[in-house]
Amino acid sequence: MGVMRLGVVETRVMDLEESLRYYTQVVGLQLTGREGNRAYLKAWDEEDHHSVVLVESDRPGLEHMAFKVRFQDDLDKFEKSIEQYGIKVNRVSKGARMAEGQAIEFKLPTGHIMQLYNEIEKVGNGLKLNPDPWPDNLKGMAPPNLDHLLLTGDDIQSVTDFMTRVLDFHISEQVVSVDGEQLIGTFLFRTNSPHDIAFIKGPDSKLHHFAFHLDNWNEVLRAADLLTKNDIALDIGPTRHGLTRGTTVYFFDPSGNRNEVFSGGYVPCADFTPITWTEDQLGKAIFYLERQLNERFVTALT
Amino acid sequence: MGVMRLGVVETRVMDLEESLRYYTQVVGLQLTGREGNRAYLKAWDEEDHHSVVLVESDRPGLEHMAFKVRFQDDLDKFEKSIEQYGIKVNRVSKGARMAEGQAIEFKLPTGHIMQLYNEIEKVGNGLKLNPDPWPDNLKGMAPPNLDHLLLTGDDIQSVTDFMTRVLDFHISEQVVSVDGEQLIGTFLFRTNSPHDIAFIKGPDSKLHHFAFHLDNWNEVLRAADLLTKNDIALDIGPTRHGLTRGTTVYFFDPSGNRNEVFSGGYVPCADFTPITWTEDQLGKAIFYLERQLNERFVTALT
Amino acid sequence: MGVMRLGVVETRVMDLEESLRYYTQVVGLQLTGREGNRAYLKAWDEEDHHSVVLVESDRPGLEHMAFKVRFQDDLDKFEKSIEQYGIKVNRVSKGARMAEGQAIEFKLPTGHIMQLYNEIEKVGNGLKLNPDPWPDNLKGMAPPNLDHLLLTGDDIQSVTDFMTRVLDFHISEQVVSVDGEQLIGTFLFRTNSPHDIAFIKGPDSKLHHFAFHLDNWNEVLRAADLLTKNDIALDIGPTRHGLTRGTTVYFFDPSGNRNEVFSGGYVPCADFTPITWTEDQLGKAIFYLERQLNERFVTALT
Amino acid sequence: MGVMRLGVVETRVMDLEESLRYYTQVVGLQLTGREGNRAYLKAWDEEDHHSVVLVESDRPGLEHMAFKVRFQDDLDKFEKSIEQYGIKVNRVSKGARMAEGQAIEFKLPTGHIMQLYNEIEKVGNGLKLNPDPWPDNLKGMAPPNLDHLLLTGDDIQSVTDFMTRVLDFHISEQVVSVDGEQLIGTFLFRTNSPHDIAFIKGPDSKLHHFAFHLDNWNEVLRAADLLTKNDIALDIGPTRHGLTRGTTVYFFDPSGNRNEVFSGGYVPCADFTPITWTEDQLGKAIFYLERQLNERFVTALT
Repeated sequence: MGVMRLGVVETRVMDLEESLRYYTQVVGLQLTGREGNRAYLKAWDEEDHHSVVLVESDRPGLEHMAFKVRFQDDLDKFEKSIEQYGIKVNRVSKGARMAEGQAIEFKLPTGHIMQLYNEIEKVGNGLKLNPDPWPDNLKGMAPPNLDHLLLTGDDIQSVTDFMTRVLDFHISEQVVSVDGEQLIGTFLFRTNSPHDIAFIKGPDSKLHHFAFHLDNWNEVLRAADLLTKNDIALDIGPTRHGLTRGTTVYFFDPSGNRNEVFSGGYVPCADFTPITWTEDQLGKAIFYLERQLNERFVTALT
Repeated sequence: MGVMRLGVVETRVMDLEESLRYYTQVVGLQLTGREGNRAYLKAWDEEDHHSVVLVESDRPGLEHMAFKVRFQDDLDKFEKSIEQYGIKVNRVSKGARMAEGQAIEFKLPTGHIMQLYNEIEKVGNGLKLNPDPWPDNLKGMAPPNLDHLLLTGDDIQSVTDFMTRVLDFHISEQVVSVDGEQLIGTFLFRTNSPHDIAFIKGPDSKLHHFAFHLDNWNEVLRAADLLTKNDIALDIGPTRHGLTRGTTVYFFDPSGNRNEVFSGGYVPCADFTPITWTEDQLGKAIFYLERQLNERFVTALT
Repeated sequence: MGVMRLGVVETRVMDLEESLRYYTQVVGLQLTGREGNRAYLKAWDEEDHHSVVLVESDRPGLEHMAFKVRFQDDLDKFEKSIEQYGIKVNRVSKGARMAEGQAIEFKLPTGHIMQLYNEIEKVGNGLKLNPDPWPDNLKGMAPPNLDHLLLTGDDIQSVTDFMTRVLDFHISEQVVSVDGEQLIGTFLFRTNSPHDIAFIKGPDSKLHHFAFHLDNWNEVLRAADLLTKNDIALDIGPTRHGLTRGTTVYFFDPSGNRNEVFSGGYVPCADFTPITWTEDQLGKAIFYLERQLNERFVTALT
Repeated sequence: MGVMRLGVVETRVMDLEESLRYYTQVVGLQLTGREGNRAYLKAWDEEDHHSVVLVESDRPGLEHMAFKVRFQDDLDKFEKSIEQYGIKVNRVSKGARMAEGQAIEFKLPTGHIMQLYNEIEKVGNGLKLNPDPWPDNLKGMAPPNLDHLLLTGDDIQSVTDFMTRVLDFHISEQVVSVDGEQLIGTFLFRTNSPHDIAFIKGPDSKLHHFAFHLDNWNEVLRAADLLTKNDIALDIGPTRHGLTRGTTVYFFDPSGNRNEVFSGGYVPCADFTPITWTEDQLGKAIFYLERQLNERFVTALT
C-alpha cells in the first residue's frame, strides 16, 4: 500500500489559451481534455489521462496537488490516519474533474491542498507492444513525465512530520540552521528519486515550482534554448543543484508560475541516510555552481 | 514493508587477486573488506558495506543474490509467505558474511539462491553534510551503484508468479511467444527503474549478467573505452536495449561472468502497464540497434 | 589559396524517389533542386546550394566528389600543378550541374573522379542575423554538414603523394604494415578535423562511405535509433574509431552506399604529427571498442 | 602559408605558485618548464612545448599572445606586409622564452602585443602509435587544447581590418550598432572554429578572457563542478553563447584573469558568410540563455 508518486498538479493560470500554447508548444505536453475553465495535459510517457491541470483564474498558483496511491483501499486507510493525526479530510467525488475517480482531500500544515487518489482513466503512451524507445512527433522540451514540486510554508517541521509519519515519505535532504535547531527545508521522496515533493521556509500556501523530468544534461540545454527561441522568461540555469545533485533550468509560465526541467540525481531507497545542508551553505545547496541565491528564488512565488 | 532493492550479488571468481584488480581498477568499485576466500566491494555512492561479494571458486557464476527489505520484521513475514507458497526457507545467521546481519535464504523456481536481509553495516558514501555532487579520486567506470541482474531458467512463468505474488515485484516488460502462449522472459522491478531483476528462458541456475548503473550515455562510452584501454573482453555495445530503453555495454570479468553498465530507461511505478515483446522481435528487444542477438547472448552464461 | 573542404559528393542511387525519402526523412537533408535524373541536397547548416547530389543509375557508387577551393584563380593554379604531376585535367563547364560554376576534373591514382570548384550558388542557412543556435523543423538525423569520405584503392602511396604534394592535404593518420614498409591507409585533412578524405587499400574506384557531421555522442545514439525506427540497415555502431577518435554509426542508403554519422575527434593543424597504426592493430584502429573488423567493412563497397 | 592557430598566451599572474596550483590542478594543464619568473604549460593533447606561459608580475593581464604560422618563411613575409601596413615589427630572438624559436612581434591597433612564430620545441602528446583516444591520469578540467582569446579595444574597425587584410583572418561574426554604422565586436578565425581571436569595444590593451576547448556539454558541467569543488570564482555559466553557438563557463584565475572552457559551435571555412548581431541583441549574442550581460562582463578586464 501507499503513495506511489506525484500524479497531478493543478495550476491556476490567468489566460488559458496563452497557457495552453506554452504548455503544449514550449514545454511539449499533450492536451488530453478540456472542460469549462480547465485543460488537462499529460507528458508523453505518462499513461494516465493527465498530470497537469490548468484552471483559468484571476491569479496564478497551485490549486491542488494529488499523489496517486497504489490501491483504492489506501484511501480509506489514509483517511483514517490523516484524521487521527488531526487533519480534516474530505472526500472528492468521482468526476469532480475529468477522468478522475474518487479522491480524499486535506490541507497540509503549510496550507496547501493535497489529494490522494487511485482511480484515473488510462490513455496510455502508445509504447506497449514491441515499442520504439521514443515516439515520433514530440514537441518542445518533451519531458517524459512530471517529476516533483517545491512548496513554501512557515512550519517545515510540522509538514515534514506529517509527510513522513502519516504518508510515509522519506527524507532525502534537509536544510537546517547553523546551530542545527531549526528546519529550513526538507526534500521528501516516495519514488527512488531525490524528491517527489519538497518544502522550504516561506509564506504558507505558496508554490515555488513544479518540475518535469528530462533524460539528461543535453536535454536540459535544449530546453533552455527553447526558452530563448520562444521568448519565455528564464529564471536560472542551466545549472546544478547541490540538493539532489540534479541539473536544472527554472523558468516561468505565462502566469508567473515557476516551472523546472530536472535531470539526474541519485537513486534513494527508504534506508537512505538524509543529507544535511547548513543554512550558511544554502546558496550552494540550491545552486551548486553559482553558490548564491538569486533574489527571485525567495520572492517569485505563486 | 517489502523489498527495497537488489542489495548484494555474490559472484564466484576463479582468481581472486586478478578479479579484484578488475573490479577495483576497471569497474572502479571500492574494496571494503576481505576475509578468507571472499572480498567485499561497494560502488562509490552506496552506503552499505558491500553490494558485490567475490568468492574464489573453481568455476564462475552466481553464488547468491540478496535483496534488502525495509524492516527487520519483513524477514518473518516473507519467511511465512514463502513457505506458504511451498518454497523452503533457511535462516542465515548474522555474521555468515562480513558486515551482514541475519537473512532468510531460499531457492527460486529457476534454481537460483536468493536471500532477503535488512541488516548490514553502513559505511557511508562520505556525502552527507553539505556535499559535493561527486567525490574525488574515482577510478575506472566508477558506477554509483549496483543496478540489476539477469538470470536464466526453464520455467519463467513460475518464477515470475513467485516474484510478483510473494515478493510483490511488478512486471515492466515481458517477452512472449508469437502466439502469446509462452512466457520467454520477464523484467521485474521494485524500485522505480525498468528492472531490478529479470529472467529469460535458458538453463536453470545460470547467471546472464549483473549490471551497474551509470549516469548517462557519455559515461557508457567512457566505460567502453576503459574496456579497450584495459584489454577487457567486450561482449556488445555501446548500444540500446529495446527492453527498458536503457543504454548499455556488456563485457566479461576475468572469470567470464558477464557484467553490464546500464544507463537510462523510464521510471515505472506499481501501476505501470507491462510492455510486451513478441519472440519474433527478440533481437530488437534485446539489442534495439543491431536488431539481432549475437550468439554469445544465449551461450555465455555462468 | 587552396582547398577549403569537401564540398560535394555525387552518389549513384538506383531508385531516386526511394533515395530521396531516405536522404530527406531519415538523414534529414534538405532538397534544394531537381533536374533530370539528379536531385540536389544540402545539410541544414550549409550555405551552398548542395553538398550531396543523387544521380539515378543502374548501380550504386561514387560518381564524383568535389572539393571547394578558396579562389576562382585556384582552379588555374591547380590545373597547372596537377597536369605537371602527370594527371590529365578537364574543365567542367558552368551549369553542368545545377547551381555550380566552372570546375576542373581529374582522376586520382585510385581511379576516383575528383573535381575542384569555387563557384556555387549560395542559398544560405537562414541564420545570419541575430540567429538562434539551431533552426526549427529539423528532420531525421539532421546533420549540420557533410564531413568526409573514405575511398578504396590499390596504390595508397601514390594517391597520398598526390593529395599531399599537389593538393597540400596533411596526413593525420596512417596505417602501415607491421614492418612499416607498406602504406595501407591514409587519413588526410585540409580543415581542422581529423579527416576530410581517407584512402584504404582495396579495389580501385570504390566508395567505402561518406559521412555527415553530428555535434555529439547523444546525437549519434539518436541517429542510430532513427535507423531502427525507419528500418534502415545498420552496418555497425554506435562505436568509437581508433583512427580519428571519432564516434560513429555506419549504415546503408537504399542502394547500398555506406553512410556515416561522425562526431568528435581532435583538432589538427598543418604541423600535426601523423598518428601511425600498424596493421596488426587494424581492428582497434577502425573500431576501437570492438577491436576487430566486421566482414562487411572490407566487402561492402560501392 | 599563413597563420595556423593561436599558439601561446602569456599571462601575468601575481602569485606564481598559487597560479600553478590552479592551472595544473583545477584547469589541468601540464607543467612543461620553469625558468625565472615564468612557468610553461601545455594542454594534454597539444604537441608543442607550451601554449600557456605564466609570468609573475604585480598585476594580471595579457603579456602577449602568439599565433603559430605554417612556415618559417612566413615570418619574413608577414614582417614585410605588417610593416607595409604601417605597424612596426620587432624580431624576438630564439630563446627569449623557453623552447621557442625566433618570432616577430608587433602591436595591434588595440594595443595588444602579438607575436607570430613557427619554431617551438615539440614535446608530443604520447598518442602517436596505435594510440588510445585519451590518456590516463588526466587532472581537473583537462582541456585537450587552447582555443581562443577575446580582447577589448577602442577601434574595432581598425584591428579587424588589420587582422583580415594582413593576417588573412576571416570574420565569423560581428556585432554592429543598430544603425549598422559602428562595429562593436568582431570574431575572427583561421582554424575551422568559430573564433581563434575576437575583439569587443572596450579599453585598449585589455584581456577579456582566454579559453580552452572541451569536447562536449557534459565536460562543461564537469568543469563547472570543479570550480565549486575547488572554490574558484565562477563568472557565469554553464550557458550558451549566441555568438559562435558555443557552450561555456567563464571563471577567474587567482589573479583575476578570466578563463573560459568552450565547447561546440559550427565549422566555418573562408567562404563563411559572417553572422551579424545588432547591438540591441547584445545580451542574447553574448549569453543566449540569460539574454543579458552581467555587469562583470564589461568591467572585469585584466
